[in-house]
Amino acid sequence: MVRDVRMRGFAERADVAEVEAFLAEQVRALGAEKVGLLECTGRVLAEGVSSRVDVPGFPRSAMDGYALRGEESFGASEYAPISFELIGTALPGDAFAGSVGKNQAVRIMTGAPIPEGADAVVMAEVCTEPTGGRHVEVSDAVPPQKNIGSVGEDIRRGDAVLAVGRRVRPQDAALLSSIGRPDVACVARPRVRLVITGNELLPAGSHPSGVQIVDSNSVMLRGLVARDGGALLPFEILPDIPGRIKEAMADPEADVVLVSGGSSVGQEDHAPRLLGELGSLDYHGISMRPSSPTGVGRIGSRFVFLLPGNPVSCLAAYEFFAGPTIRQLGGRTRAWPHPKVMLPLARKISSAIGRTDYVRVAIEEGRAYPLATSGASILSSTVRAQGAVIVARGHEGMAEGEEVEILLYDEEPEPSSPGTGAGKAGGPVPPDSGAKG
Amino acid sequence: MVRDVRMRGFAERADVAEVEAFLAEQVRALGAEKVGLLECTGRVLAEGVSSRVDVPGFPRSAMDGYALRGEESFGASEYAPISFELIGTALPGDAFAGSVGKNQAVRIMTGAPIPEGADAVVMAEVCTEPTGGRHVEVSDAVPPQKNIGSVGEDIRRGDAVLAVGRRVRPQDAALLSSIGRPDVACVARPRVRLVITGNELLPAGSHPSGVQIVDSNSVMLRGLVARDGGALLPFEILPDIPGRIKEAMADPEADVVLVSGGSSVGQEDHAPRLLGELGSLDYHGISMRPSSPTGVGRIGSRFVFLLPGNPVSCLAAYEFFAGPTIRQLGGRTRAWPHPKVMLPLARKISSAIGRTDYVRVAIEEGRAYPLATSGASILSSTVRAQGAVIVARGHEGMAEGEEVEILLYDEEPEPSSPGTGAGKAGGPVPPDSGAKG
Repeated sequence: MVRDVRMRGFAERADVAEVEAFLAEQVRALGAEKVGLLECTGRVLAEGVSSRVDVPGFPRSAMDGYALRGEESFGASEYAPISFELIGTALPGDAFAGSVGKNQAVRIMTGAPIPEGADAVVMAEVCTEPTGGRHVEVSDAVPPQKNIGSVGEDIRRGDAVLAVGRRVRPQDAALLSSIGRPDVACVARPRVRLVITGNELLPAGSHPSGVQIVDSNSVMLRGLVARDGGALLPFEILPDIPGRIKEAMADPEADVVLVSGGSSVGQEDHAPRLLGELGSLDYHGISMRPSSPTGVGRIGSRFVFLLPGNPVSCLAAYEFFAGPTIRQLGGRTRAWPHPKVMLPLARKISSAIGRTDYVRVAIEEGRAYPLATSGASILSSTVRAQGAVIVARGHEGMAEGEEVEILLYDEEPEPSSPGTGAGKAGGPVPPDSGAKG
Repeated sequence: MVRDVRMRGFAERADVAEVEAFLAEQVRALGAEKVGLLECTGRVLAEGVSSRVDVPGFPRSAMDGYALRGEESFGASEYAPISFELIGTALPGDAFAGSVGKNQAVRIMTGAPIPEGADAVVMAEVCTEPTGGRHVEVSDAVPPQKNIGSVGEDIRRGDAVLAVGRRVRPQDAALLSSIGRPDVACVARPRVRLVITGNELLPAGSHPSGVQIVDSNSVMLRGLVARDGGALLPFEILPDIPGRIKEAMADPEADVVLVSGGSSVGQEDHAPRLLGELGSLDYHGISMRPSSPTGVGRIGSRFVFLLPGNPVSCLAAYEFFAGPTIRQLGGRTRAWPHPKVMLPLARKISSAIGRTDYVRVAIEEGRAYPLATSGASILSSTVRAQGAVIVARGHEGMAEGEEVEILLYDEEPEPSSPGTGAGKAGGPVPPDSGAKG
């Protein structure tokens, strides 16, 4: 029985920066997989893409108008239009079959191939067809090559068009389409296994009842993993049975295992021991608030994160350690995935030297209101907050009025429907209860 | 035959701001639909959510430790520990069945229900079990209520927890789970029909061949619509046959119809006439570059956008008019969905009074390099660019060194793999060719 020893707490806590550096050093982007053109937007390229074709592959008209020999239009004006014989039409995808000869013109639409013999396009706005389609009168001169898109004007064969590591935008996918790519090599999406344990947990969608609570961490983690480009493996809540937890943690399908619950040093906290048996528990106990019981380890090439069961701790531990790992595995940067803003603090934040604090803040009228710095079980605080301030280990806190960097929780600093009614951001802050997590 | 008349160009061009104001005024958020808890992250709430339960619904331990009567611990210290009879264990989801009496204690884990009779929890770190589990020695005093999470400390029954219009974050979904919601009413996703026409187009994934080019606009629009929260209806490229185009534009399933190609005033440009027949062509021809042939109209409650076929014009017209409409229909703000940055211009931008310009810019070393302001057919310019600068109609241009606002194309101003090899941002800029679009 190691029970009472194991309940004694952490012998030594690692520094946040040390654990971050360890992960940044250990993580390598996953291998490549072929991704279809219609699925590649948002993915990260595992290959540099060069074009094997010219775009366009033929000279095309940049205007609606008339294709002719430019020098034959010289001298044309509104007062002295020049008449050309109209010998046909060129449409996109439907070339004019013949050749344009002296004093001849072909009606042409934007994107249509330039007919043989023609070297310029006169825009429709300066032309009329007075004879019902047999002639065109041109009232402005165009130099040769005017309004013609040349072969390869967009992309030339051999051009490097997209670099390895690029996160594909909608227009990048369009470009891949235009050069004839049916698919492209992308960094594989990290497969993430959620291991949620707890006999007290009811599955999401249940009604809380008696001493049972509804699993909320898997719901939150699901959204965070999707945001960070991970692919979730099938999920079910596990009972606090070591064998079941061990089997789930050892899942060979996973690149990342997120264990929530059972990560501390209490009686039912099996996960740290099991991780040590399966691989390495590289860090357990981190000098931060909340989330101090967080564990980080590896099983072969897999990364395992022991996230505290308290929801705020779970969120903070995910954002510090698991999120950057998933992004990096998927070829993205470790950086915070939402905007950051600098705003003055409406109230001071107290911290302690040697500890990193993750402080939720609400933003009102351009000022940041720190919410309770403790209360790791208070999920609603992360709903009231618009973001978080990190107090680094070297600081005792931050003063009222100090400009602080806020990691926003989404794209908009001040949503049109500000926050929730669950509590006013400027309202009373519960005293530090020293709660676990 | 109206052919030569219709090729004459636009009689009058509307102002960008006027069209934007028209749309902002006309668009209403769609109705609500029930969305399952696991699908609601990123969606917009159509209901304000109040909790029908207390969270937690029972007093719970905030620590691993021992539940007892706090006043009985008074006077305990490292030198004079107080011994309590250990009568059982309380685990999360597994309450201790009895009652804690005088000089008794119950081993308790974080999240477990506080047993009857106890009113405080002593943390495990200041306790030992010297007699193999029959007693616990407590070496620190705790006041009553210490380390106890009270009923409703996170959320109280009746609390308004999420406001209507809120875009659901991962932690919001977690909160919905914790209060027992299996689903929530969200604004419906706008259903978007793409109508891509052109006899010259091969489907995405094809190899370009002869005078045929590969459809890239649908690939780009697909990504943009997904970004803006729209749901794409089934899609196929249509031939330039008015009956087929008309039928597709009239699709009663759609909330938004995006027509690409056939939107100008040329011979094969059926879309504007068809839109006028089916509903209203509210605007056709907009004073902007690129994208001047853009059309905007309605069929019943549906919004129809005639996007130019040239890819840059298609992108700009989407971003100015269609994107904000889709976001607003889905309950989101019309605002640009990516970050904006202020940077100095590395080269001047020339524009014209009365016209709004959409200028792609590449960012290098903290300065914005305008790429060609024309070249609406040059898709690769939108790939080289990191964002766009809007030159409003009242300006003739912007000077070198002027600080300009850049609408970034994605979340990172300067990607780690900077741009592409398709062309140097600071390289030569093709002269304004006056190309259509």
